[in-house]
Amino acid sequence: MVSLEEKFLKLGVNNAPGQEMKTDINVTNKSMLVDFSHGDVDAFKPIPRSLEKFNEGFYLGGKQAYTEYKGKKTIRDDISEKISRFTNTQIESDKNLIITSGTQGALFLAMGSTISKNDKVAIMEPDYFANRKIAEFFDADIFSIQLDYFGVETGAGINLNQLEESFKKGVKLFLLSNPNNPTGIMYSSIEIKNIAKLAQQYNVTIIIDQLYARQVFDKREYIHLCAQREIDPENIISIMGPSKTESLSGFRLGVAFGSSKIIQRMEKLQAIVSLRASGYNQTVLDLWFSEPEEWLKERIKKHQLIRDDLVSKFKLYNDIFDVRATEAGSYLFPKITKFNTTMLNEFIEKLRTQENIIVTPGTEFGKQFKNSFRINFSQDHQSAVDAVGRLIELAKEYSK
Amino acid sequence: MVSLEEKFLKLGVNNAPGQEMKTDINVTNKSMLVDFSHGDVDAFKPIPRSLEKFNEGFYLGGKQAYTEYKGKKTIRDDISEKISRFTNTQIESDKNLIITSGTQGALFLAMGSTISKNDKVAIMEPDYFANRKIAEFFDADIFSIQLDYFGVETGAGINLNQLEESFKKGVKLFLLSNPNNPTGIMYSSIEIKNIAKLAQQYNVTIIIDQLYARQVFDKREYIHLCAQREIDPENIISIMGPSKTESLSGFRLGVAFGSSKIIQRMEKLQAIVSLRASGYNQTVLDLWFSEPEEWLKERIKKHQLIRDDLVSKFKLYNDIFDVRATEAGSYLFPKITKFNTTMLNEFIEKLRTQENIIVTPGTEFGKQFKNSFRINFSQDHQSAVDAVGRLIELAKEYSK
Repeated sequence: MVSLEEKFLKLGVNNAPGQEMKTDINVTNKSMLVDFSHGDVDAFKPIPRSLEKFNEGFYLGGKQAYTEYKGKKTIRDDISEKISRFTNTQIESDKNLIITSGTQGALFLAMGSTISKNDKVAIMEPDYFANRKIAEFFDADIFSIQLDYFGVETGAGINLNQLEESFKKGVKLFLLSNPNNPTGIMYSSIEIKNIAKLAQQYNVTIIIDQLYARQVFDKREYIHLCAQREIDPENIISIMGPSKTESLSGFRLGVAFGSSKIIQRMEKLQAIVSLRASGYNQTVLDLWFSEPEEWLKERIKKHQLIRDDLVSKFKLYNDIFDVRATEAGSYLFPKITKFNTTMLNEFIEKLRTQENIIVTPGTEFGKQFKNSFRINFSQDHQSAVDAVGRLIELAKEYSK
Repeated sequence: MVSLEEKFLKLGVNNAPGQEMKTDINVTNKSMLVDFSHGDVDAFKPIPRSLEKFNEGFYLGGKQAYTEYKGKKTIRDDISEKISRFTNTQIESDKNLIITSGTQGALFLAMGSTISKNDKVAIMEPDYFANRKIAEFFDADIFSIQLDYFGVETGAGINLNQLEESFKKGVKLFLLSNPNNPTGIMYSSIEIKNIAKLAQQYNVTIIIDQLYARQVFDKREYIHLCAQREIDPENIISIMGPSKTESLSGFRLGVAFGSSKIIQRMEKLQAIVSLRASGYNQTVLDLWFSEPEEWLKERIKKHQLIRDDLVSKFKLYNDIFDVRATEAGSYLFPKITKFNTTMLNEFIEKLRTQENIIVTPGTEFGKQFKNSFRINFSQDHQSAVDAVGRLIELAKEYSK
């Protein structure tokens, strides 16, 4: 049995995105910091009127401060309707949806409600680093499923044989993000259907993180797992929130929707984890999915243009970098093919100290990604382009 | 082994304070609802300028939205200094303090960082209901320690023999609230010293919830466990927050301070539970312990006056009620001596439907408290007095 001591030794935060400020460093380059570890909400500001909405919530007083643990009913009603429309499913606000403290909160509650010690969990690699950490916290047994994102041209490249093998071995929960974090690649319609079929066949619960499902590029269609007829809706929890595309991360708001049984457990768990998402903050959700008409389109377009510029820059040096263009969301996950497996950490440190640029090491997303790093390009366009220019120069030096 | 199914069946929320609105009921009495399950932040409003502070935080933009997981450094520095002064201890902001999503968040993280399956935990009875629920969620073995709050005139009446027995049997964590929730009674200086000595002797970690430590009546002195020389500070986590006396519950802010080892674990755990307390909200902590000079005094005085009126009312009917006057905080925990053990639930339901009054059943604080109920009297003074008048009338009817 893993002792609590060992468990917390493994549970690191120092390389996690947003924690880099903890390291005392002496930055020699005086260019402005470009922090690719998360989006810049000063470059892409929160939904218009967010602050006013919060103020309205505050003035509602006690009834807004003390909502039900799963969130205020009128707000749940409104979101349930909007998300039903977005996903083309039927979400009943009283039993299929909970408001949480960010999507991180939703993920923790969903996992805490579905797994315990020695339960078998399938996790994609690469995928959001917290998936694995939460599974380890609950002492689950992890089955890694590989994503061959460089090996396919359409779809994410999920190894479905490996997935089925893990299901055969007794996996009860399968976790994935779509678009995939950190690659920004979307699962194809066929992949989603196959995942749905397998989960149904082996009675596996799926938790799917759809955080970036609204920021899709190149007029692609987003395929909702929860809308697939092949799978019982009671076997799925989907997670969304306004922290990324909508830049509301400072409010810590998220939702989970789907299986009534799991939502009910999540409410019970939230009651002991944090009671509820901050009451006044919940009010801001009124604006979500109700943004000014052109605002969202414009935002997606701007991100697509940044992606285009960064991807072209990397592709100019395809002797050094492998990069697959983001299909949705704000992540790029370049691989430096010229590096041996020990060079990346030093490179990332030099980037930080010499160039004032922060990126997230690939190893946060799976220990085999020793040559990759993640960039969140939701940044000021020119700053991002300049920073990637400097990053490439440094990589060239290192690759000599 | 307890299955996840059984675990979540036990983990109820329907009787938890603040959840009563979930029950569809037909209230016949048209008096205004008096909800004694939690404080009324419309009667006692948040610290002046709270909303302005939040707005300042929002305008700080990205650097306030994405703080370190344990909270923004400048805010931690400020609070650490204030709490060091309040408790007469040395709290270093970089290692001894974390900002959490409410004190509920602090409690969950502290327990998740100190116990796992089959660890032995001592819990007071009565005490805050979530203590037991969190311990059960982590599959801990619970030792109940009795509080004979009616049997003593000074102090809380903790059974120290029982506590030492539990420590001898291998308890590694002891949880308590001071002032005690739900009775509003404070542990005496001698009790605190004895607890500290025993914990030191048997190397037991203590988590102490001091949520109401600033709202002390009758010029009593609050005794800080963390300031006792008898115990190694590394063995204590103290929890405080501005949700009660200061009425900031709608912002979901709390802090835990003490043991550097446990604080470090709590940060790691918070990173996967909810990332951080909402960034903008953290700004509001600047006001905490810096309230306008007379504001806090006035607030405490007003609560003491409500307590006086309610306690006198109950004491007029000492053939029906046993009540011990609150020493700190806003809770009263009257016992209806005339009821047999099956009458309370019906009484509480009648109170709700006939009188539009909500109280919390004693059984939430320990299953033996079948004749007691908790009142949070942080309410409009006259409404509270009227409601208790109606409550007494109903109890008289039932006691015939």
